[in-house]
Amino acid sequence: MDREQFRVAAHSAIDEIIDYFDSLPTRRVTPTIQPGYLRPQIPDSPPEEPEDWRTIQADIESKIVPGLTHWQAPNFMAFFPATVSYPSILGELYSAAFTAPAFNWICSPACTELETIVLDWVGKALGLPDCFLSTGETHGGGVIQGTASESIATMMVAARERRLREKALSEGLLEGSQEYEDRIMELRPSLVALASDQAHSSTAKGALIAGTRFRSIPTSLEDNMELTGSALRMALEECEKNNLDPYYITLTFGTTNSCAVDRFQEIKTVLSEKKSWQRIWVHMDAAYAGAALVADEFQPIAKEWSEGVDSFDMNMHKWLLVNFDASCLFVRNRLDLTKALDITPSYLRNPYSELGTVIDYRNWQFSLGRRFRSLKIWFVMRSYGLSGLKAMIRKHIALSDVFTDLVRSRSDLFEIITKPAFCLTVMRVRNPKNSSNTVASLRPKETEHLYALQPDEVSDTLTKSVHEAITTRGEIFITSTVIAGITAIRIVTSNPATDEKNVARAFEILVETAEAVIRMSASN
Amino acid sequence: MDREQFRVAAHSAIDEIIDYFDSLPTRRVTPTIQPGYLRPQIPDSPPEEPEDWRTIQADIESKIVPGLTHWQAPNFMAFFPATVSYPSILGELYSAAFTAPAFNWICSPACTELETIVLDWVGKALGLPDCFLSTGETHGGGVIQGTASESIATMMVAARERRLREKALSEGLLEGSQEYEDRIMELRPSLVALASDQAHSSTAKGALIAGTRFRSIPTSLEDNMELTGSALRMALEECEKNNLDPYYITLTFGTTNSCAVDRFQEIKTVLSEKKSWQRIWVHMDAAYAGAALVADEFQPIAKEWSEGVDSFDMNMHKWLLVNFDASCLFVRNRLDLTKALDITPSYLRNPYSELGTVIDYRNWQFSLGRRFRSLKIWFVMRSYGLSGLKAMIRKHIALSDVFTDLVRSRSDLFEIITKPAFCLTVMRVRNPKNSSNTVASLRPKETEHLYALQPDEVSDTLTKSVHEAITTRGEIFITSTVIAGITAIRIVTSNPATDEKNVARAFEILVETAEAVIRMSASN
Repeated sequence: MDREQFRVAAHSAIDEIIDYFDSLPTRRVTPTIQPGYLRPQIPDSPPEEPEDWRTIQADIESKIVPGLTHWQAPNFMAFFPATVSYPSILGELYSAAFTAPAFNWICSPACTELETIVLDWVGKALGLPDCFLSTGETHGGGVIQGTASESIATMMVAARERRLREKALSEGLLEGSQEYEDRIMELRPSLVALASDQAHSSTAKGALIAGTRFRSIPTSLEDNMELTGSALRMALEECEKNNLDPYYITLTFGTTNSCAVDRFQEIKTVLSEKKSWQRIWVHMDAAYAGAALVADEFQPIAKEWSEGVDSFDMNMHKWLLVNFDASCLFVRNRLDLTKALDITPSYLRNPYSELGTVIDYRNWQFSLGRRFRSLKIWFVMRSYGLSGLKAMIRKHIALSDVFTDLVRSRSDLFEIITKPAFCLTVMRVRNPKNSSNTVASLRPKETEHLYALQPDEVSDTLTKSVHEAITTRGEIFITSTVIAGITAIRIVTSNPATDEKNVARAFEILVETAEAVIRMSASN
Repeated sequence: MDREQFRVAAHSAIDEIIDYFDSLPTRRVTPTIQPGYLRPQIPDSPPEEPEDWRTIQADIESKIVPGLTHWQAPNFMAFFPATVSYPSILGELYSAAFTAPAFNWICSPACTELETIVLDWVGKALGLPDCFLSTGETHGGGVIQGTASESIATMMVAARERRLREKALSEGLLEGSQEYEDRIMELRPSLVALASDQAHSSTAKGALIAGTRFRSIPTSLEDNMELTGSALRMALEECEKNNLDPYYITLTFGTTNSCAVDRFQEIKTVLSEKKSWQRIWVHMDAAYAGAALVADEFQPIAKEWSEGVDSFDMNMHKWLLVNFDASCLFVRNRLDLTKALDITPSYLRNPYSELGTVIDYRNWQFSLGRRFRSLKIWFVMRSYGLSGLKAMIRKHIALSDVFTDLVRSRSDLFEIITKPAFCLTVMRVRNPKNSSNTVASLRPKETEHLYALQPDEVSDTLTKSVHEAITTRGEIFITSTVIAGITAIRIVTSNPATDEKNVARAFEILVETAEAVIRMSASN
């Protein structure tokens, strides 16, 4: 493909992409194909001879698009959104053209320097305390990771190594000696990572990657599934009793199940109670809900993290219009990270890195190479401006209030399980025969989540049936989950394309389906 | 940015990208800016109000391009190449538009299914044995990772868990029990990963991530820096003596320093000698040189790996025209991987995954989410055809032969240190006064690497000076390294844009600079 062929091909691709976005409101969200649909349509082996672009491009609409789940469709209300915007696509385009593994400064200075600057922008936009900015006194800073799960695993390895190093050094051992290696190996088996039972599974997976134990701390509906100080204390004391050494904890700002926010102030107090607890690495996982911090009304929250948080992560690719991947990880002290991950062989040595005048992001992550991802964040923040991003978040939150009020208006059919937060509503279908739950319909909106619902088999079955019927129908895409033993439906209304009409229609579908399922169940 | 603004912006971006590629032959490869060049040019904080695309786009040429190292420039001969091609950019474009975290099949079936099919294409194109194809009998298959280093760390965690599980189960412990957890923790401290001292530093870093020990096995110039069976046996016996338990080894097909190829047949024989050695996970790191396997003349090599290799990885983003990131990892048995990394919470449960009828690639990697990277591989393989890819590899290898012959023609000035391989020449400036090395100038081309050079301080100093002078001058970009104690210059001539003219000019620069440096050193 020469330059002129590329020009024609790329212009045509751009036009096709615009048409694709235009078509989303009328497309079914999930595909109707069955597993294995693609293999019969693609040759077994790559072609011997070159094919022309028109042949290749035709296969996108005919073979690929039918197998896509349309995350940008206005009726996509499952999981959390994964946004993209036109300026973000432009960023990806230039990033591909300027391709470089960019593992150190000299490999592509612009890639490194723009990342540092733009991550400071993101930190400021979210109202993060100065300790997370590259210009702050604690030698903090931000780095773009692929995913929040990658960030968590990376923080866990850094936390593990910090813990082991501090212990071995406090015993007077010399880093690099055989005694030191033996000692840090001896200390590993007692290490344990913590997170609430509502934290994303990536903490458990991170512990698996880091090769340490993991303990999940219970939450309850009475506490709105938030991790409390007392539950943490109990877990820490249990660890002590079993001679386990807690080195890391994930706190969540907006859990996957229900957007619960762990109780930071209580937790901070508990962690200050004992010297060894003070050195537990605290990671704030705000993968989805962290985006809300761009709006001024949420910013006081982030200010609380100026002490007691070692790292913070949020995904711009969820709710801030940058396409996957753009996970923004901030650390309070970058030496905690680079001391754990810096291995510099001679073929990577260069005067800039040796002098420490530049940042080598390869020491802030597992991988050596990295893409030029700051471009798309830069383009999006400039194209929308802070005012545009704030307006979007506020519009979504208002839209979500409309939706939850609709749900409340049919408390004969539905029960809200946890406090609606950050555009996520967690609900179930009411058991028509369970009078003990009718009190819930009288709960005042502000405190409804304080009246904890009880598991109910009939409700579980009805909720599951409603979810399955809606999934099969395919007009909207929503997720189900299990929360405190209760089968629940999760509906997220923060997709940029979603408007009042879509939300009203989604509610209509829920009502219709619930009524039909209840009718059918009563007649059985 | 609305649809029409995007159309205009994107068409203009495409045109700018074409112009950028056209300008590369006349650009200086490395930038002349100093560390910190960018910050004064960018506002401290993100803009409150939206900016228009023309303002943003103007900053690319004025602020970003001056800070780029141009990896696609014909005079880029450093590290290994990081290629991109027009079809690859188109793949990245569609991938951004179809953005989705794609962590399981239902999240984007096309993304999962195309990856399986295209990785089978890649496996076949490289002549990999059937055990690495998704359709093979060993339940193998390929997955796209970001980097070869990510692949290595992932394989090490899988290897570590396989080892621990096998040991604990052989002792009759029940998976999931407290005794099982305690036992696998107890076993961890003795685990040790291995690689030759020429393996990429990502194995040492992988051991750090996995939290195990690492031992580097010496190589020598006499063996062309290849890992030998006897060196491995010695290392394994040393481990036994120290009660260490080797669980993983990286073998390299084309080391970073000198493109050495570890001696697989010897190593396989040694590993078969003891039962516990037979279960050491063997990973073949072919990050760069693996690309050469598309050419038929190299394919017999891959056939040897049908037994005794657990995983194989090569980066299409190095030498096969797909832009970073496209690291193709193949495993012999995917259960080894998914058993280590599968953690499925209720919000990720779905009937397709539960039935095992689909692949959930999140269990093949550290991260949960993933991009639609198979599109760009698909587009490149179809646009070039196998014939196009083979022709490119052969052209580069021929070009490299031209270069090494030029170097040999000036054996009064230069010495080739290791056997030139896969377009990489490793050389030093000859110490004019060291007559013991003159024998090297008489070495026949085919066996020149068997006459191992000795470290030489004068030569080290001259070589370092030549490298520094060439770097400062900036017309070509080459890397220096230290190999067997010898300071060396590495020159890679497999950049797609590089032609005979560039290679001849690079050699001219080397000669001029070496002569000048030697003259200056003699006059001091």
